[in-house]
Amino acid sequence: MVPQMSVVVVSNRGPLSFGFGSDGELVTRRAAGGLASTLGAAVQGSGATWVAAAITEADRAAAAKGSVEAEGFRLESLVVDDDAYRMFYDVISSGTLWYLFHNLFDLPRRPRIDRRWREAWAAYRSVNEQFAAKAADVADEGATVLVHDYHLLLVGRMLADRRPDLRSVHFSHTPFCEPMTIRVLPDDVAVELFEGMAGYRSCGFHSPRWAANFRACSEAVIGHTPPTYVSYAPADADDISDVAASPACAEQLASLENRIGDRQAIVRVDRIELSKNLLRGFHAFEDLLQHRPEFRQRVVFAASVYPSREGLADYLAYRQEVQSLAERINETWATADWTPILLDMSDNFARSVAALRRYDVLLVNPIRDGLNLVAKEGAIVNERDGVLVLSREAGVYDVLAEHALAINPFDVSGTADAIADALTMAGDERKQRAAALREIAVARSSADWLAEQLEAAHSS
Amino acid sequence: MVPQMSVVVVSNRGPLSFGFGSDGELVTRRAAGGLASTLGAAVQGSGATWVAAAITEADRAAAAKGSVEAEGFRLESLVVDDDAYRMFYDVISSGTLWYLFHNLFDLPRRPRIDRRWREAWAAYRSVNEQFAAKAADVADEGATVLVHDYHLLLVGRMLADRRPDLRSVHFSHTPFCEPMTIRVLPDDVAVELFEGMAGYRSCGFHSPRWAANFRACSEAVIGHTPPTYVSYAPADADDISDVAASPACAEQLASLENRIGDRQAIVRVDRIELSKNLLRGFHAFEDLLQHRPEFRQRVVFAASVYPSREGLADYLAYRQEVQSLAERINETWATADWTPILLDMSDNFARSVAALRRYDVLLVNPIRDGLNLVAKEGAIVNERDGVLVLSREAGVYDVLAEHALAINPFDVSGTADAIADALTMAGDERKQRAAALREIAVARSSADWLAEQLEAAHSS
Repeated sequence: MVPQMSVVVVSNRGPLSFGFGSDGELVTRRAAGGLASTLGAAVQGSGATWVAAAITEADRAAAAKGSVEAEGFRLESLVVDDDAYRMFYDVISSGTLWYLFHNLFDLPRRPRIDRRWREAWAAYRSVNEQFAAKAADVADEGATVLVHDYHLLLVGRMLADRRPDLRSVHFSHTPFCEPMTIRVLPDDVAVELFEGMAGYRSCGFHSPRWAANFRACSEAVIGHTPPTYVSYAPADADDISDVAASPACAEQLASLENRIGDRQAIVRVDRIELSKNLLRGFHAFEDLLQHRPEFRQRVVFAASVYPSREGLADYLAYRQEVQSLAERINETWATADWTPILLDMSDNFARSVAALRRYDVLLVNPIRDGLNLVAKEGAIVNERDGVLVLSREAGVYDVLAEHALAINPFDVSGTADAIADALTMAGDERKQRAAALREIAVARSSADWLAEQLEAAHSS
Repeated sequence: MVPQMSVVVVSNRGPLSFGFGSDGELVTRRAAGGLASTLGAAVQGSGATWVAAAITEADRAAAAKGSVEAEGFRLESLVVDDDAYRMFYDVISSGTLWYLFHNLFDLPRRPRIDRRWREAWAAYRSVNEQFAAKAADVADEGATVLVHDYHLLLVGRMLADRRPDLRSVHFSHTPFCEPMTIRVLPDDVAVELFEGMAGYRSCGFHSPRWAANFRACSEAVIGHTPPTYVSYAPADADDISDVAASPACAEQLASLENRIGDRQAIVRVDRIELSKNLLRGFHAFEDLLQHRPEFRQRVVFAASVYPSREGLADYLAYRQEVQSLAERINETWATADWTPILLDMSDNFARSVAALRRYDVLLVNPIRDGLNLVAKEGAIVNERDGVLVLSREAGVYDVLAEHALAINPFDVSGTADAIADALTMAGDERKQRAAALREIAVARSSADWLAEQLEAAHSS
């Protein structure tokens, strides 16, 4: 609920996606993905306007008909030129800023700031201009504008210039890097980026660690920093509980139980993404099999990992490595009636939720992660007092650490030891920890998160 | 000269190396490499004792005969068990700490802190113990101990415990990373490392940037930091001038002139090392050929790059990439009488110095580099008022920036533009800049550097 306040949400991907039905008519669906579903739930019924890019052909067809009235909000789709959008999205957003903020570049080889990259940066600026223009166009006098993620960093300055009456804030869903990492960017680009963000009234992050890094970078690059705020995004408890209670999920769980039998299950649910640390997760599992023979044949590792960003060569290579490693470990350790790793690479949400219901140990071991909602989602739907093994480099670590087993994600043998501790933890302690995690996971609603963004816009 | 002071130098690689002559007798040579030759020159005649590892079979044969008296100093060789030395050197020193301090890990894949790594860390500690024991053994009462580089970080605490009468300081030849990068290490290892360094009276670096990073890391890990000092190592001007004046160098220069003809020459001289940014150097050259047709056939890029650390798979792969890229660019652009890139991968110091005498543009574009002496060595021996194109991420940038053309090493098109500016710079400006660079490069002697290390030991 957002009473007495005119709100515009701006994000690259919107809360609705469109498709064509069997006879070519437009069909509207709720979009998948963290931001859209979580913030979408909060915005429902608020009367807010949501500005987002028309990404698919169906999105464009819908956009051509004007804005769309949905459950209590209005969607304004932005149609961007295809080539510009690809450079904005692939080269700068996914290919540069995402890597930069996660500090995940293999620096001897990437990035390569060349003339094509410079063109892409111009496209990034231009797409940000189009978002800013659209937002300026639809915002009421004095409206509050909530802009999301690394795709739209420059919108702050652009909106401040066009519409000084608006109160705009930003929220980053990624981590933020340290000043030496920012030096990868050409100086003029770095200045433009931080001046862009300084146009917001405040910049929000999932963790004080990311906010502190951002302020240090902004100080280093432009000599000052906008205010920052910290606000943990909630898991969408209702949504995931609905899926957990669905017949589709029950079917998936039955099939999973069939394969796991009476064994213990380590589970992970992740996009196949460089930050998620899938390789070291498998190495840790193999270390466990090697050094703790009592777990052989008694444990399976159900890895629900689905492809992501397959347009980037890096991601295709990583997917291959993940698959090869899992196969190699299975070849090394499998017996006639036991497959150590159940690798599921299909993008099936009901199946992932089934795995979360069934885990004895949930492995969440990212190298670096803005937040990581899976850790909370697991706590909400798990039915076995499963233990959370959690990387200290995830934003969600700040609030869940006390009830999880903490790991350094680079430490493979340390991760194996933590998994062994989790697998052998006494029932009482498991129960107590699981209850505490669940309590934290359901305590925050998407309305809280939205309220904190609005507060940031009005207190600074 | 080190009057009235008893000094012990401790480093992994010593100032002498041994070999077997044709009839099996031991032959003593001055060791190659920056630290040994630079500090060696300063220590000559000081009466200091130098503790270093016996690395080759001949080193061990020499060590078996006891300490070696050389030109005014005494070498005490330390014989370390082969397996322990390999883990100390390959896994921890070259394979972990070097990457860490340069922030050059491809984090989704490396490092992998596993049980083998833990064994290697124990070996690193044990080899450090052996160095500390040897130093404690040979040091006079109240002696000053100068310990060098990332191989021997723990010696500080060990010496402080064994011999509180000694004054020991450390000097790092690498950069130092930021606190988030240090989190790659397991906590107990990070604490041991910074407690080890806190045992020194002071820790020295080539640049205030590395010193500031070190202090921030030490504060983050153990809550306090030892004092730091900054001292730029000098180029060994006498040594490189001697080589430049040698008949061997004259012969190499003639052969190089033959290939270059009346064209302008861009030169680089580097070990093939991930930090040196060889790939982007070639990409920048190709950008120049592509966008500035006037340079085609008129410029060659003489790259004197010699293999390094070929025991590491990563380095072998990188060498392949470097070679393939150079070949591909030559295939794309070469004409009947012009080969754009002259790639020389032999380790021939006289040939490298010949290239430094001949450059019109010296490209020094590391991703990150503790100091980089080539920039100074080039200024000393160059005979054509050549222009220095210098990465802002090299330690030496602090003192040479004003007279060089600065680049962001990730910025390929920016690097190409800087090279074009250098190639077309007016003679007067070239002359003035080259003179200024030469003046700075010869201003400091190795005695100055040694004196600053001793001062750091006695002022803190």
